[in-house]
Amino acid sequence: MSSNLVLHKDAVPVPLTVPTSMREAFINNYLKATCNTGRLLLFAGDQKVEHLNKDFFGPDISPESANPTHLFDIASKSRIGAFATNLGLVARYASDYKNVRYVIKLNGKTNLVPTQQADPNSCMWTPVQQVVEFKKQTGLDIVGIGMTVYLGSEHESAMLAQAAQAIYQAHQNGLMTTVWMYPRGKAVQNERSADIIAGVAGIAVCLGADFVKVNAPEAADSFESAQLLRQATMAAGNTRVICAGGQSKSEKEFLQALYHQIHGGGAMGAAVGRNIHQKSTQEAIKFCNALAAIIIDDADVATAE
Amino acid sequence: MSSNLVLHKDAVPVPLTVPTSMREAFINNYLKATCNTGRLLLFAGDQKVEHLNKDFFGPDISPESANPTHLFDIASKSRIGAFATNLGLVARYASDYKNVRYVIKLNGKTNLVPTQQADPNSCMWTPVQQVVEFKKQTGLDIVGIGMTVYLGSEHESAMLAQAAQAIYQAHQNGLMTTVWMYPRGKAVQNERSADIIAGVAGIAVCLGADFVKVNAPEAADSFESAQLLRQATMAAGNTRVICAGGQSKSEKEFLQALYHQIHGGGAMGAAVGRNIHQKSTQEAIKFCNALAAIIIDDADVATAE
Amino acid sequence: MSSNLVLHKDAVPVPLTVPTSMREAFINNYLKATCNTGRLLLFAGDQKVEHLNKDFFGPDISPESANPTHLFDIASKSRIGAFATNLGLVARYASDYKNVRYVIKLNGKTNLVPTQQADPNSCMWTPVQQVVEFKKQTGLDIVGIGMTVYLGSEHESAMLAQAAQAIYQAHQNGLMTTVWMYPRGKAVQNERSADIIAGVAGIAVCLGADFVKVNAPEAADSFESAQLLRQATMAAGNTRVICAGGQSKSEKEFLQALYHQIHGGGAMGAAVGRNIHQKSTQEAIKFCNALAAIIIDDADVATAE
Amino acid sequence: MSSNLVLHKDAVPVPLTVPTSMREAFINNYLKATCNTGRLLLFAGDQKVEHLNKDFFGPDISPESANPTHLFDIASKSRIGAFATNLGLVARYASDYKNVRYVIKLNGKTNLVPTQQADPNSCMWTPVQQVVEFKKQTGLDIVGIGMTVYLGSEHESAMLAQAAQAIYQAHQNGLMTTVWMYPRGKAVQNERSADIIAGVAGIAVCLGADFVKVNAPEAADSFESAQLLRQATMAAGNTRVICAGGQSKSEKEFLQALYHQIHGGGAMGAAVGRNIHQKSTQEAIKFCNALAAIIIDDADVATAE
Amino acid sequence: MSSNLVLHKDAVPVPLTVPTSMREAFINNYLKATCNTGRLLLFAGDQKVEHLNKDFFGPDISPESANPTHLFDIASKSRIGAFATNLGLVARYASDYKNVRYVIKLNGKTNLVPTQQADPNSCMWTPVQQVVEFKKQTGLDIVGIGMTVYLGSEHESAMLAQAAQAIYQAHQNGLMTTVWMYPRGKAVQNERSADIIAGVAGIAVCLGADFVKVNAPEAADSFESAQLLRQATMAAGNTRVICAGGQSKSEKEFLQALYHQIHGGGAMGAAVGRNIHQKSTQEAIKFCNALAAIIIDDADVATAE
Repeated sequence: MSSNLVLHKDAVPVPLTVPTSMREAFINNYLKATCNTGRLLLFAGDQKVEHLNKDFFGPDISPESANPTHLFDIASKSRIGAFATNLGLVARYASDYKNVRYVIKLNGKTNLVPTQQADPNSCMWTPVQQVVEFKKQTGLDIVGIGMTVYLGSEHESAMLAQAAQAIYQAHQNGLMTTVWMYPRGKAVQNERSADIIAGVAGIAVCLGADFVKVNAPEAADSFESAQLLRQATMAAGNTRVICAGGQSKSEKEFLQALYHQIHGGGAMGAAVGRNIHQKSTQEAIKFCNALAAIIIDDADVATAE
Repeated sequence: MSSNLVLHKDAVPVPLTVPTSMREAFINNYLKATCNTGRLLLFAGDQKVEHLNKDFFGPDISPESANPTHLFDIASKSRIGAFATNLGLVARYASDYKNVRYVIKLNGKTNLVPTQQADPNSCMWTPVQQVVEFKKQTGLDIVGIGMTVYLGSEHESAMLAQAAQAIYQAHQNGLMTTVWMYPRGKAVQNERSADIIAGVAGIAVCLGADFVKVNAPEAADSFESAQLLRQATMAAGNTRVICAGGQSKSEKEFLQALYHQIHGGGAMGAAVGRNIHQKSTQEAIKFCNALAAIIIDDADVATAE
Repeated sequence: MSSNLVLHKDAVPVPLTVPTSMREAFINNYLKATCNTGRLLLFAGDQKVEHLNKDFFGPDISPESANPTHLFDIASKSRIGAFATNLGLVARYASDYKNVRYVIKLNGKTNLVPTQQADPNSCMWTPVQQVVEFKKQTGLDIVGIGMTVYLGSEHESAMLAQAAQAIYQAHQNGLMTTVWMYPRGKAVQNERSADIIAGVAGIAVCLGADFVKVNAPEAADSFESAQLLRQATMAAGNTRVICAGGQSKSEKEFLQALYHQIHGGGAMGAAVGRNIHQKSTQEAIKFCNALAAIIIDDADVATAE
Repeated sequence: MSSNLVLHKDAVPVPLTVPTSMREAFINNYLKATCNTGRLLLFAGDQKVEHLNKDFFGPDISPESANPTHLFDIASKSRIGAFATNLGLVARYASDYKNVRYVIKLNGKTNLVPTQQADPNSCMWTPVQQVVEFKKQTGLDIVGIGMTVYLGSEHESAMLAQAAQAIYQAHQNGLMTTVWMYPRGKAVQNERSADIIAGVAGIAVCLGADFVKVNAPEAADSFESAQLLRQATMAAGNTRVICAGGQSKSEKEFLQALYHQIHGGGAMGAAVGRNIHQKSTQEAIKFCNALAAIIIDDADVATAE
Repeated sequence: MSSNLVLHKDAVPVPLTVPTSMREAFINNYLKATCNTGRLLLFAGDQKVEHLNKDFFGPDISPESANPTHLFDIASKSRIGAFATNLGLVARYASDYKNVRYVIKLNGKTNLVPTQQADPNSCMWTPVQQVVEFKKQTGLDIVGIGMTVYLGSEHESAMLAQAAQAIYQAHQNGLMTTVWMYPRGKAVQNERSADIIAGVAGIAVCLGADFVKVNAPEAADSFESAQLLRQATMAAGNTRVICAGGQSKSEKEFLQALYHQIHGGGAMGAAVGRNIHQKSTQEAIKFCNALAAIIIDDADVATAE
């Protein structure tokens, strides 16, 4: 990693909801997840629930992607910060992938019901206390938890309350927290407008989250998008913003956008899913490592490629 | 059973949600339910709730089917893996059928309210802890639990959360788990499309389930359907896929379809209800045994018949 | 009672949800409620909630019916099996009626909101544990509990779940259970069709109930209705079917219908409310005893009258 | 008080939900609230929630009514049985009004949302256990609890269940209970029809309540209204009926109506709010004492005035 | 502070829900929050949730406002009574701002869903017990809690119940309580009408709150508005009324309105957010101190400016 990115353990932003007895555990989790840089490359593996199988099987997708082991193979062999997915999936595969750092995604829903029919609601599959118990029983390297909140949904306040509770409980147990903040619902005109994205990033810090995953604002190009993102990274304060990968694009475009998000927009990493796992294992690992070069080594795009 | 199907106890896919102290119990339940093969013939007996009495009484149905004992008689005298039904029904009859292996179906609803009127919701009748207590009090051979989840329903996320919890609790107590994953709701155009079925099978592994029951994809014939099913068995990973029997068809067609599902589609068994219990006890036992020949003995259709 | 109806205590169908330590208590309750015959004459007194005051006051109703004591006077002086009503009403009067056997009705709603406006939902007023506590505190002869489930209502699954739990808890405490199973909701075309009634009776056995109260199927006359009822009594298996009294009719017609329900339809008793309590105390007792003659003494109509 | 109204402590209707250890406490509360007569003059002070400020401020209302102390001043200096209001209001003022007997109103809602928009629902602000704890901590003379149930609302069954529980818990702790039973909802054509009022009074006794507050039936005059009320007082049995004061009318008319309700309709008191507190303190006390004369002293209207 | 405003500790209105053991703690919190005057200058910092980022970033807003530290810088360096915001935000920043007195805002929602689409509902993010635990773990100077209730919303009764519980629990733990009472919902024609505002202020005292934040009534000018406010301050009794700052206006207008609210309307302070934090830190501190001069020092506008 670039020496100028080294995050000293005293510089980790430890929220006061982490009790003294859990302070060291929290700092360790934070540093592991961010590879000692404060920047997070989160490999997102909750799309089997959120997007069903369309992200994993099809004409432009590597056949390897069809099998869940693909996700774990990539997570195990790449320079990612952590792999985020459901506790159930971890339970079924992690005995063969003990070197992976895991973030447990606590809630979930599919994309079958369109927003026009009903505003989105995502219920908690797993209480934090169960994650703690599971970590203890298995000895897995679970560094944190995550959950999605749909702002602008008629159910937003219930989801916000659940997120606030999950974050509090996670901190009480020394776990790092990431919230997926998505504006979505009949009331949301444009999910990618810069001010809405800044708004939901600002709510993440009010929830006490350590990281917030948002979509980058809509703009003419990724440079301009990153400029607009700065509003969100300011609003989020010491909650670090990471951008979602979004729909598949060329590797170069992706890396360029990521570079802008970090250097122009103040992002502190990325959460990438289909742009990684739709490739063959070998290609995916290579791409992950390119992402890691930019995020963790502070490389430029030419070096990272 | 065919010697090439023998599943060694070390090869049972034990999820990490099974604690060490329950590992042996889980393996025993898994091997008993699958007759030491890893393949599951589940005799489904929850239709008295789901389909009311129309599956049990009518012109083309054996008169024996009208009495609940019929289900237990078949379960007791056939080579099935396990008999799945509600705890209440088990409580009323199992004292006379102690040799049967039971799977307790935890939730349920009728088919009276059509999807056009309201999206389906199935509530938990029985918490897992009660199944554990009931097993202890009665000494019955309860090997697992099951529940239905309707994906694409406006209530899907609540059902998913309940399923995740039930699976976690079952594993904590050494019980095997099966989820009935059905795409259903106003938002679901085609419940039998291959990609949707693969999608819901993929969610089952994210829930941590051991087996997932799905309907076979719609296709011109059962051979093609089985080819399409392969997407689902891949998506489900080490969660094993079993196919629902569906509406009554000829025995030969049924066996042929099952054979294709296993050998063409990667299925690891079947969950069959009305195609069994609508026959006379003698015919039902004979048919169960034919199913067992294909599933457990790895026989071909001609041999099984 | 007719000697051929004597139910030996070893022949009582004890569900496995009754633990060994409660087995004797359960058998005693069952035999008391059925007057040692296995047949149940349940005097239904929950209509003050379900039907408001119209069943108790009006031109064709005995003035005595207007006062709640009327119900208790009848229950106390007739040969009924048990008197079913709300815990609150029992609490206010039973100190003067300690000889009555009580069934506590756990849930309730009025008939003010029509089905066209909203599907019916009946919430639990009283948890089973409270019934157990109340029985212990008062020494009253509470033999069981009951509740209503509306199948075909959009709330059916929640009610089913509550019923399953109440039955389990009641059995754990040695109490007998009765479910009122009514098809009702916008989705229900005909509440009195034979197959629907058989369907809901079949669900009662899946819930684990000891008795199920249904309406007799619609037919040209009570003889034919009883023939159609047989589908339900078969579907219910060892859960015993009792028929609701329904709207007021002549005593002779009522007794004739009851006789047919038992001897033609396989019913094991009746749950009667307004046909009893709308009469004067003396007439009501006389009519109860006629019902008892048919149910408990196995008399014919001529003898019973 | 009139000697013919003396209620001996052995004549207090103690429900069986009051355990032996709480029997004396219950009897004391009942006798205190009814001034040893069995009749209850309840000064209702929950309108600040139910009616907002319109009952307390305006052209025809005494300026004193604008301040909450007005309610306590009246309660403290009049011959009322008990003063019913929210725990929060009691907490803020009762340290200066320790001589008052309090009934804690457990639930509440405003009148802002009209019935045409949404059926009424009143949630529990305060669990009974908290009332018991509060009474113990403060030493206040809290004699009972109360709550409103809207029958005919789509939420009625949930409110009924909460009321049944609150009454049970109150009795377990020796507290007297009063239910406000109001027919209200889109399904209710006429909230003042005699049979509906009798119906909801009949439900009160099924809930186990000690007193039920209803509106008097609509009629040509208060004499006829009282005749119609008799159906309700019969239906309520040993749950005593008290009538709501309703909209402001002349003192004489009010007293005359009350006299008829008691002597013609079988009422056992009244619950009066705005007809008291909209007057100046001095006038209000005088009017309370006139009400007390009729209720507690069994005076006629001329004497009471 | 002006000597005539000194509130002796014996004059603090301590509700009876504060147990004796917590009385001193409550009085200390009350006096600290009100700077020993009984008047409260609450710096409101929950708009990042309620208003998203529009209050914090834009053409007329100081660039400093974009960063959450801005709020804490102001809170730390001004003469405010307390700073009200979400527990999560406090957890992320308060280690650097230990001198601030905090009020934890317990619930929250965004303004994305318009009232025309769905009536507002604000869920509890943080239970009071957690605030107590957090205060103990961190040693932060948390003096109270707050929450918003939307009266006239179809969800009002659920919010009222939650508020009543939060206030009770806060008092049990010696914390001061403030409720934001906003009339809002499809049923509310005019959120700023004087009688509605008096109504919701009157509910606050029934909830037992110590302070109630309302909007000042609509009127031709701030003098008239303050006259109309008097109805609310009377209705609220010994629950003290503080006015919301509302939309940005000139400093002089703001101070003038505040002066009228206190001296004409009986208000006991103000809750101000965007009128403070949209300024630069230096300007904001200066303005806070002007507010403090009027509220705490009882200064006139000319002196305060």
